[in-house]
Amino acid sequence: MQGTPQPSDQPAVYPPTDRTVPTRSADRASYDKELVHSILDEGYVCHLGFVRDGAPVVLPTLYGRSGERLYVHGSTGSRPLRMTGLADPGLAVCLTVTHVDGLVLARSAFHHSINYRSVVVHGIARQVTDPEEKRTALDLLVDHVVPGRATDSRPANRKELAATSVIRLDLGEVSAKVRTGGVNDEPEDLALPHWAGVVPLRRTYGTPLPDGDLAPGTALPHYLESL
Amino acid sequence: MQGTPQPSDQPAVYPPTDRTVPTRSADRASYDKELVHSILDEGYVCHLGFVRDGAPVVLPTLYGRSGERLYVHGSTGSRPLRMTGLADPGLAVCLTVTHVDGLVLARSAFHHSINYRSVVVHGIARQVTDPEEKRTALDLLVDHVVPGRATDSRPANRKELAATSVIRLDLGEVSAKVRTGGVNDEPEDLALPHWAGVVPLRRTYGTPLPDGDLAPGTALPHYLESL
Repeated sequence: MQGTPQPSDQPAVYPPTDRTVPTRSADRASYDKELVHSILDEGYVCHLGFVRDGAPVVLPTLYGRSGERLYVHGSTGSRPLRMTGLADPGLAVCLTVTHVDGLVLARSAFHHSINYRSVVVHGIARQVTDPEEKRTALDLLVDHVVPGRATDSRPANRKELAATSVIRLDLGEVSAKVRTGGVNDEPEDLALPHWAGVVPLRRTYGTPLPDGDLAPGTALPHYLESL
Repeated sequence: MQGTPQPSDQPAVYPPTDRTVPTRSADRASYDKELVHSILDEGYVCHLGFVRDGAPVVLPTLYGRSGERLYVHGSTGSRPLRMTGLADPGLAVCLTVTHVDGLVLARSAFHHSINYRSVVVHGIARQVTDPEEKRTALDLLVDHVVPGRATDSRPANRKELAATSVIRLDLGEVSAKVRTGGVNDEPEDLALPHWAGVVPLRRTYGTPLPDGDLAPGTALPHYLESL
C-alpha cells in the first residue's frame, strides 16, 4: 500500500523454481538470501558444472561474491572460460559450494548421514569484458580467500589481466540445503549396543610457511595471524 | 614376448583422452592409478554432475571405491538416481573430488593460487540391480566415511534397501590434477615488501558428541578414537 514502509527493496528469498526444489528432503532446502550468502562467503572453492559435447564436466575452481553476483576466474585457455567467450548467449552452468560440518553415525547403517551446508546456483555465465569490473572482480577473488590480501599484493599488470578471464554469474536461481543436528534412529534401534552421535568436522589453518626469499623485515601480516 | 614376466596384469595409468587432458597446466595432470586411488580414498564427498533438460546439475553426494569402481547412493527419489533408472543406456556423469591443501600467497595478485589435489571421472553411471552388489556397496559407503563402522551398525533391512538406490561408475576415463609447493613469483617481484608463502589447510575432527539415548555401557569405539 502507498506509504507503507517496506522492510527492504529486495525480497529476502530467491524464488523457487523446478530446478531448485529438490525431489527429496525438501525440508532441508532454503531460498533465504542471508543463508545463501553466508554459505557462499565461508568458502572459496566451488565446483563448476557445464556441458561440453553433450556431456557434463565438473571442475573445482575459486570464486568470489559481490552482492548478487558471483565471479570465477581462470586462464583464458581453460575450457569453461573459453566456452563463455565462444558461446554468444553465455554458458549454462551450475555452481555448487559445499561445507561438510560433521559425520552423523546412527545405530543403523541406513540412517548414517552427513551434516552439511550447500548452495547450488543455476544460471548463465558470461565473460566480464569491462576492464574496471574485471579488475574489481580479481581483487574480490583474492580477498575472498584471504580478507585484506588484495591491497597487500602487487596488482595485476596489463599482460596478466589479458591472460586472465573472469566470468560472472548472477544469483537468481539459487537454493541452499542444510542438514544439522543429531542422529535420527528408528525408536526400535535405540537399545542397540552401537555408539551413535556426531563427529564434528572443521577446516583448520596450519602455521603459515614463509617463502625463502622474503624481503628483509617482512613480517607476517595481521590478517594471517587471525585466520 | 612369451615368457617375459609382466610387472602387472593392469596398466598403472588411465589412458588419457581428449576430455582428461587439460587445456592448461597440463604438467599438473596425472593419470597414475595409485595417485587417483589415494585422492579418492582420502575423501568421501564428491560433486556429481549430470545433464538435465540440456543444462548442467552439480550435487554433492557421498561415494565409496572398490577397486576400479565407484559407488554413489541416495534415495530412490533423488534426481540422478531416478535418471539412471530411467535412462536405459545409463546416465553420463562427471564425478569430481577435491582436497584443498593450502593457500598460496604470492607477492603479486596474479600468482596467488591454491595447493590442491583433485580427481575428475567421466563415465556412464548405471543402477546397481544385483542385491548382493548393492548390499556390499552400501557397506563400502559407510566404511569409506568411517573405516570399521559398517560391521558396527545395524545392517539395512529389506525396506531400507528398497528405499535406497546405488549407482556405479567405472574408473576408465580419469585424471588427477595436483598443485603442490610454494609461490611462483616473478623474479622482479621478489624484493617487494609483501609477505609470501603457503598457509597449510587441513580437515580436523572435533570431539565426538554422543547421542543422548546411548544404550548403557556403550563406549566410544576405537575406530573413532583414531580419527
